[in-house]
Amino acid sequence: MGFVQILDIMLASQRWEHLAATWDDTKRQELVKFWHALDGWPDSSKGLYRLKGKAIVGTLSNGSVRLLVNMAKHADLPWDVVFSGEILGSYKPDPQVYLGAIRYLSVPPEKCAMVAAHIHDLRAAAKHGMKTVYVRRSTEDVGVKEQVKRKADGGEVDVVVDSLEELAAEL
Amino acid sequence: MGFVQILDIMLASQRWEHLAATWDDTKRQELVKFWHALDGWPDSSKGLYRLKGKAIVGTLSNGSVRLLVNMAKHADLPWDVVFSGEILGSYKPDPQVYLGAIRYLSVPPEKCAMVAAHIHDLRAAAKHGMKTVYVRRSTEDVGVKEQVKRKADGGEVDVVVDSLEELAAEL
Repeated sequence: MGFVQILDIMLASQRWEHLAATWDDTKRQELVKFWHALDGWPDSSKGLYRLKGKAIVGTLSNGSVRLLVNMAKHADLPWDVVFSGEILGSYKPDPQVYLGAIRYLSVPPEKCAMVAAHIHDLRAAAKHGMKTVYVRRSTEDVGVKEQVKRKADGGEVDVVVDSLEELAAEL
Repeated sequence: MGFVQILDIMLASQRWEHLAATWDDTKRQELVKFWHALDGWPDSSKGLYRLKGKAIVGTLSNGSVRLLVNMAKHADLPWDVVFSGEILGSYKPDPQVYLGAIRYLSVPPEKCAMVAAHIHDLRAAAKHGMKTVYVRRSTEDVGVKEQVKRKADGGEVDVVVDSLEELAAEL
């Protein structure tokens, strides 16, 4: 199902019906298209280019393949491989997603790191033996991120960084 | 199944048993690894960078995801997306492969071109409404490629080129 169809279903519900009348088809298309042209974080592109020289870099997202490809082209995110819930047949935090990516990469899970700005995503990845890298992002995990700590500091993740450039420098 | 296992099965057959004794595990690993570090054609990397600015560029291969990622990193092939038989649940020329890539890209088939050095691959793609680009490669389709012609010249494919740079220039 496309995002416009999902939006249509939402707008048909009681909760959002006050918006349905004012958002016509053009507006709905626009709103959905917006996701395909998001800017990256200021460090994302440079950080990924540096990480690419040291490891295989891929996305593991619940977004559709086409959304991820468009995002990558718009924000110059040079992923080596695009994994999506659409490809992996399920959505995070379902184990099938993490295990699928590990299988396609043909690596032992402990040689594979999940990099995320959401602790729930890293908790799910850690269950399957993956390394975990927490990226503190101002808009994400509000009220949560201040408590996330490295195992070395008594916390639950392997690495905490403020940017992908910092991660690339640490590798 | 990994490539080493496939090689092991081949070498266990009567046809290849004369090699089995002389190729030990190290040699077998080496032979398989070789595929992961092939050089690209001289035009491939530059051509793909130019094509990337004009279109979404992906591989659609029967190779495994990891093989394709390794090839891309080794030969600097900047695919936007890696499609593999492994992801698409079947192998070319099965329709599922072409139709799967079209579905993931969310494009009408006629806005999607298969680019290949094998005419049988293009014939399969054309059945599903894809545009076809034939790349003449010295080592491929030996004895066949001289007969491949553009529709405009009474042939069966949309475009014939000698390199990806030539294709990028034509788009």
